[in-house]
Amino acid sequence: MVAVVVHNLGMYAVIMAGGGGTRLWPLSRARRPKPFLPLLEGGCSLLEAGVSRLAPLIEPADIYIVTDARYADLVRELVPAIPATNILGEPMGRNTAAAVALAAHAIDRPDDVMVVLPADQAVADEAGFRAALASAGERAAAGDMVTLGVEPTEPSTGYGYVIAGGDATLYGGCESYRVERFEEKPDQARARELIASRSAYWNAGIFVWRRSSVLAGLARHSPDISEPIGDWIAAAPRGLEAGWPGTAMAQTYDRLRATSIDYALLEPASLEGQVAVVPVSVGWSDLGSWSALRDQRSEAGEPVIDVEPPARVIDVDGRGVFVHAAGGRTVAVVGLTDVIVVDTPDALLVCSAQAAQDVKKVVDRLKAEGRDDLL
Amino acid sequence: MVAVVVHNLGMYAVIMAGGGGTRLWPLSRARRPKPFLPLLEGGCSLLEAGVSRLAPLIEPADIYIVTDARYADLVRELVPAIPATNILGEPMGRNTAAAVALAAHAIDRPDDVMVVLPADQAVADEAGFRAALASAGERAAAGDMVTLGVEPTEPSTGYGYVIAGGDATLYGGCESYRVERFEEKPDQARARELIASRSAYWNAGIFVWRRSSVLAGLARHSPDISEPIGDWIAAAPRGLEAGWPGTAMAQTYDRLRATSIDYALLEPASLEGQVAVVPVSVGWSDLGSWSALRDQRSEAGEPVIDVEPPARVIDVDGRGVFVHAAGGRTVAVVGLTDVIVVDTPDALLVCSAQAAQDVKKVVDRLKAEGRDDLL
Repeated sequence: MVAVVVHNLGMYAVIMAGGGGTRLWPLSRARRPKPFLPLLEGGCSLLEAGVSRLAPLIEPADIYIVTDARYADLVRELVPAIPATNILGEPMGRNTAAAVALAAHAIDRPDDVMVVLPADQAVADEAGFRAALASAGERAAAGDMVTLGVEPTEPSTGYGYVIAGGDATLYGGCESYRVERFEEKPDQARARELIASRSAYWNAGIFVWRRSSVLAGLARHSPDISEPIGDWIAAAPRGLEAGWPGTAMAQTYDRLRATSIDYALLEPASLEGQVAVVPVSVGWSDLGSWSALRDQRSEAGEPVIDVEPPARVIDVDGRGVFVHAAGGRTVAVVGLTDVIVVDTPDALLVCSAQAAQDVKKVVDRLKAEGRDDLL
Repeated sequence: MVAVVVHNLGMYAVIMAGGGGTRLWPLSRARRPKPFLPLLEGGCSLLEAGVSRLAPLIEPADIYIVTDARYADLVRELVPAIPATNILGEPMGRNTAAAVALAAHAIDRPDDVMVVLPADQAVADEAGFRAALASAGERAAAGDMVTLGVEPTEPSTGYGYVIAGGDATLYGGCESYRVERFEEKPDQARARELIASRSAYWNAGIFVWRRSSVLAGLARHSPDISEPIGDWIAAAPRGLEAGWPGTAMAQTYDRLRATSIDYALLEPASLEGQVAVVPVSVGWSDLGSWSALRDQRSEAGEPVIDVEPPARVIDVDGRGVFVHAAGGRTVAVVGLTDVIVVDTPDALLVCSAQAAQDVKKVVDRLKAEGRDDLL
C-alpha cells in the first residue's frame, strides 16, 4: 500500500435526476418519476435525501442537478436550497453520457473536482459515503477518473461490475485500486464467479474526476457527444440562466447518440489505465424495485406503511408488508407476508416482494396497449 | 331401512335474504349485503342463483323472499320473476326465528310443505340438491320438521352440527334420520370427534316442514316470538301488499327477541324427537368468506378475476388469486399466491386466503371508529 499526498481542490456535485423508475410503478410515472417521489421515511424524496447526504461535504451552492426540463419546477420545489441557476434542464433524455457532457461543459468552474452521482440511491452509512467521496476526490485531483465500487452483498445480476486490479493505494483514508475493466450485468453463474474473485464491485454510477479530466476523456472517447454540446454551450448567450432549453439546444440534443457514460467514457478509459475504484461498504442501494425499497426501510419484517392523507391503512398481522396508500381510500391488508401494495387514484399494484422485478412486465403491457395515461 | 309412502303435497320456498356478510367486506356493505352482490360467474348474485336453483322444483310464483324492507327494491330488480307480493319486507333484522315466524303466519297457503333456506349459499350439484329437498318434503309431509345436513368435508369450526341417530328411513329416494340433537360451532378437537362419529352433519340452515308443523312448533317452543307476529298479521289490513312494513309492524318487531330459528325451534323440538335430517353431499358452501368464494369458483389454483368496467385487471403469474375489481381503476397483481384483492371506490382489501376470516377484524375496527360510511 502506497500513501500519496495530493493537492486539495474544491469539489462540486452533479446529481443526475433523469426519469425512469418503471419498476416503481404505479407511483413512478412520466409526470413524476422515481427521484421525486415520497419514497423515504417521512415522505422524503430520493433527491432531497441525496442533497442532504452531500451537504456536510459539498454545500448546496456547489450542487448542480441535471434533469429533464419538464421536471425543473419540481426540483426547485423539492430542494429550494439549491440555487435555481444550478438546475440544468435537458430538452429530452439522451442517457448519462450527454448529461455528463452537458454538466462538464456548461458548469463554468475552475478545474475543481466534480462528483457525478444518480439521484435515485439510498445509503445507510452517510458519513462513510462522504469519506469515500472525499478520498476519491483526492485521487481524482491527481488526474484519475475514479468510481465508487460497492462491495457486493450478493451475486446480483442487476448491476454492472467494476473489476479492480493491482495493489491498494491510500488516498485520504480510503483504499483505491486501478480499474482493469468494467463488466456488464452478468448472468447468475458469472455473478458468482465475480463475487468469488473478491476484486469485483457493483458499479453504482458514482464518478469523481477533475473537470479537465472528464472533458479530455470525452473529447478522446466520445467526441460525437462532447463536441456538439461544447459548441452549443460556447455559442449559448445566457449560460445556465432561465430560457434553457431553447430550440438550439433541442436541435443539438435531438441528434446526440444516447448512451451511458460508462460506455462512452469509463470503459474505454479503463482499458487505457485511467480509471480507479474506491471500494465502499456503506449500505448502498439503488432502490430499483419495491422490494429493494422495503428492504431499505424495514428491519426484520416490520411492516412499512406510507399514507398520504386522506388515505388510511389498517394492517392485520402483516409481515414483510409494504403499503403505500396514495389513492385517498381506506386500505386494509390482512394476514399478508412479503406483499407490496401500492394504491394510487387510477392504478393499484399488489405484488409479491419476490416478484418485484416483474412490475416491469405490467408497465410493458400498458405501453403496448398505449395506456400513456397510466405511465 | 324402512320405505315409507306419503301424501304428495305442494311445496313453496321461503328464501331468507337478510343482511350480513361482513367477512365479504369491502364489497358487502349495509346498503348492498352479501346475497345481492355480483359474486358468482358472470356477475350473478347469490339470490339469483338461489332462485334459479329452486326453479325446476319450485316455480318462482311459489318462491317467497323475506328481507329487510330497505332491500325490497333490490330484490325486485334482481329476481323480477318473483311476484312483487311474494317479497316480505321486515322493518328491522330480528334474526331467523322472527323471519320464519313472519313467513309461516303471513304467507296464506294451505297446509303445504314450506322450504326455508338462506339466500347466501352455493351448491355444485343442483339436481342432487333438489332431489334432497323433494325427499325432505316427503318426510315433512308426514309431520316431521326436516333439516338438510351437509356431509362434512373437513372438521370445520365455522358451522353448527346436526347429530343423527337411529336407522335410516327412505323417503323419495334419499335416506333420512332422526335428529338426536344440535351442537353449536365446536372447537377444533370437538369438530374432529364429530367428524369421526360419522353421524354429524353441518347445519346449513335449510329446513323443510308443513306450515302447520312449524306454526305448532313455534307456538310451543317460542310463543314470545310467534304470538305477536301472528296477532299483528291477523289484524293487518292488507296482508302482503304494498305498505309493509308499517308502524304497527315496526312496533311489533322492535319488541321481539332476536334469535335464530335453530335456538327458537329446532333444538328444543329435536329433544322431543320431532326433527329429522336428510344428509346431502352436493358441494354446498355458505360462501362465508373470500377464500370460500375463491374455492367455490376456482379449479386447481386458476386465478378468479371479476371486473366491473371500466376497471381492468392485469395478472402476472398469479396462483390461487382472486381479484374483484370494482373500483374503476387498473389493478395489477404480480407474482401472487393465494391472495385476495377486492377493490372498490372507497376501500381496498388485500388479504391472504388463509386469513380470510380475519376480514371481520377490519370490519370490527371500522365499527369501533364509527366509520359507517365504509360499512
